[in-house]
Amino acid sequence: MPALKGATVPIYFGSFIVTPQVFLQTPLTFALVNLKPILPGHVLVSPRRVVPRVADLTPAETSDLFLTVRRVGRMVERVYGASSLNIAVQDGVHAGQSVPHVHAHVIPRKVADLDHRGGTDAVYDLLDGEEGDLGKTYRDAEAGTHADGVVKTNEAASRSGRRSGFPAVDNEGRKPRSEEEMRVEAEMLAREMENEPID
Amino acid sequence: MPALKGATVPIYFGSFIVTPQVFLQTPLTFALVNLKPILPGHVLVSPRRVVPRVADLTPAETSDLFLTVRRVGRMVERVYGASSLNIAVQDGVHAGQSVPHVHAHVIPRKVADLDHRGGTDAVYDLLDGEEGDLGKTYRDAEAGTHADGVVKTNEAASRSGRRSGFPAVDNEGRKPRSEEEMRVEAEMLAREMENEPID
Repeated sequence: MPALKGATVPIYFGSFIVTPQVFLQTPLTFALVNLKPILPGHVLVSPRRVVPRVADLTPAETSDLFLTVRRVGRMVERVYGASSLNIAVQDGVHAGQSVPHVHAHVIPRKVADLDHRGGTDAVYDLLDGEEGDLGKTYRDAEAGTHADGVVKTNEAASRSGRRSGFPAVDNEGRKPRSEEEMRVEAEMLAREMENEPID
Repeated sequence: MPALKGATVPIYFGSFIVTPQVFLQTPLTFALVNLKPILPGHVLVSPRRVVPRVADLTPAETSDLFLTVRRVGRMVERVYGASSLNIAVQDGVHAGQSVPHVHAHVIPRKVADLDHRGGTDAVYDLLDGEEGDLGKTYRDAEAGTHADGVVKTNEAASRSGRRSGFPAVDNEGRKPRSEEEMRVEAEMLAREMENEPID
């Protein structure tokens, strides 16, 4: 069944309602498409319970979260024609976390996909920006201030302490996506999850 | 009990024997201290079974791996006086994996710990280097060619496709540690794991 048909309870990522972005719900976990994906198929996996740290999760929540990361990773790798995955958790504010709700980034990778941006590991520069800005991006989206697609400010760049390598991404114009675009992708991925074995 | 007393079976990380570096073994997982830690307490957690991809793990292996990441993370955060953790898996060669054996990096973080290297997210530049070089570092360590502490070559930098941001780390002289130094740390961490609740 499409995972979200009939969903009536809003789903929160931190303090933000992300219901239209969610493509999978398990008893303890949900997965959502990204407002500003670094690469096609870049998604997030979070526990339903809003807690900031992995250590705050129960063992059952921890298992369910990472079993879901594994299943979702397999699916996005297939659907987006990738061959590898970056999986990353910024667990706490001093690790770069900006939304205080545990979330694993799952990013499909393929050969030479970031060569034009500096090579395989440029994903981290991009993740820095994504993550450093995730909170601000969501706040701006809620406030409707991202119409020009430039949600990053010098203040934000300074606050997240990121390197000079990152602003190039802004220059490439990575825009927050519309709710409709995210909803369409989430519905597609919800259908694709039905083709993934449960284990 | 100290986890490794009486251990007689060599423990493999990829094709490398890392027995003296291992500080924890569970039924399906082990954890080891690092040859070239990015920050104090930077450790790796791997499944006992040598498989390259998270998708190759059974559900039981996946749960055990990440429950171990959670427990080990709690321990290194406490022991190294940190306040956050970076958790990262480079899952496949096109995500930057250099040793084809699943491994999660667990890196304790504290406020301003990388300010002198470019800020909070500079950990990714350093991880790039660590990860890009993990295979080569272990190969060089086995071959005894790392005596001068400079194991990185232009060939390796080129092969891993990493950005110009990284070589600064080499310039800072991050040296592979001696087996004795790693063994002492592993024994200390094995004792500390005894103070961690099982759940």
